[in-house]
Amino acid sequence: MSHTSAPPAVSAGTALDTGTAPSPDAYGTGARFSLHPMTDSFIDVILGALEAADGDGLAITTDDVSTHLRGPEDRLLAYLTEAIAHAGRTGVHTVAHVLLSRGCPGEVACEVADGAAYAPQVPSPAATTGVQASAHWALYPLDDGPDTDHMAGIYAAIEHAKELGVFTRSEHYVTRLDGDLADVLAAVVAGWLLVGADVRHVTTHVTISLNSPTVAGGER
Amino acid sequence: MSHTSAPPAVSAGTALDTGTAPSPDAYGTGARFSLHPMTDSFIDVILGALEAADGDGLAITTDDVSTHLRGPEDRLLAYLTEAIAHAGRTGVHTVAHVLLSRGCPGEVACEVADGAAYAPQVPSPAATTGVQASAHWALYPLDDGPDTDHMAGIYAAIEHAKELGVFTRSEHYVTRLDGDLADVLAAVVAGWLLVGADVRHVTTHVTISLNSPTVAGGER
Repeated sequence: MSHTSAPPAVSAGTALDTGTAPSPDAYGTGARFSLHPMTDSFIDVILGALEAADGDGLAITTDDVSTHLRGPEDRLLAYLTEAIAHAGRTGVHTVAHVLLSRGCPGEVACEVADGAAYAPQVPSPAATTGVQASAHWALYPLDDGPDTDHMAGIYAAIEHAKELGVFTRSEHYVTRLDGDLADVLAAVVAGWLLVGADVRHVTTHVTISLNSPTVAGGER
Repeated sequence: MSHTSAPPAVSAGTALDTGTAPSPDAYGTGARFSLHPMTDSFIDVILGALEAADGDGLAITTDDVSTHLRGPEDRLLAYLTEAIAHAGRTGVHTVAHVLLSRGCPGEVACEVADGAAYAPQVPSPAATTGVQASAHWALYPLDDGPDTDHMAGIYAAIEHAKELGVFTRSEHYVTRLDGDLADVLAAVVAGWLLVGADVRHVTTHVTISLNSPTVAGGER
């Protein structure tokens, strides 16, 4: 993560809902994710994971590089947890890459709409999955004007990850997270929302490794 | 990519070197990347790729989630092109994820040092690899003050990708690139530097798919 220099001003878990919730389409709330099972039968693992997850409330489109999900934050968290956990339970070494974005409904040539930052309450983590995850996480506040305070959100994100017990350490350009997949993903989504309470356009990227044969680097 | 609303003000390919080059360690110039060959013999493909690439001039450390590279931009581009091309030439469906970062030597709690933005001249693409790549690309200017102009750099990045012939279209949260792997990676590194001429802290993420069995979504 980036740009931390002040103590937290937003308590983790604080309800952030301040006003009428904009629709995910209007606010540009969504995710891209890709799943990489390192096995000859990768297609079966990927399709099985996508079918196992409950896509209710989400618009889902898949191309040859990644899957796009558009929908509310709690549904994104639940879907990603279910899909990635399903792949992890095969025992195959699998890496998932997730990009979450909010505040920019447009595409590459993103023009952030006028209006205040909005973030709903941080969703509760899903039930633990029993799948151990190791992750590299980056969190990007974008387009913050002179009146926003992205420092507060980033500190709250780190504190929240610590409260969930998944914060391991800082590394070059990323934060290392380790723990149950549900808690790792919950920390990522929470951080995105805690920054999003003050900054309209926020993205976050996380690379999640499951069942790695390499000796884990996440001892705490 | 994000935040485009103005015509390009920096020509692609312009020499950006303005002053004494800071060292990669001092400026925080480096990459994280991970390689995901979807085969039972993934370890052989990964190790073969890492061994095939020339790491001269780079500090390289690998953990169970990703590999960290610290060094100058032209060496990063050459190394990534060689390593990922080697994996692609196995014919195995492989996905690479690359994060490039500049301007923030610190870690998670990144405190951007004082000083002007710096970017060297955009390196030339490596020789074409013969490996076709499809990619989703995001480019993030961070910490821009009131005097910086990240719009100019982002437009220059898009124009440069078009000149290289790899720009396919904008999608949700990302730019779709297709073409020879060397040109795709060159476009990503160039975009990072073109924005970096005006903004000190810039990161970029790209997910690159090789040998996908899925019908390509990149028809132009």
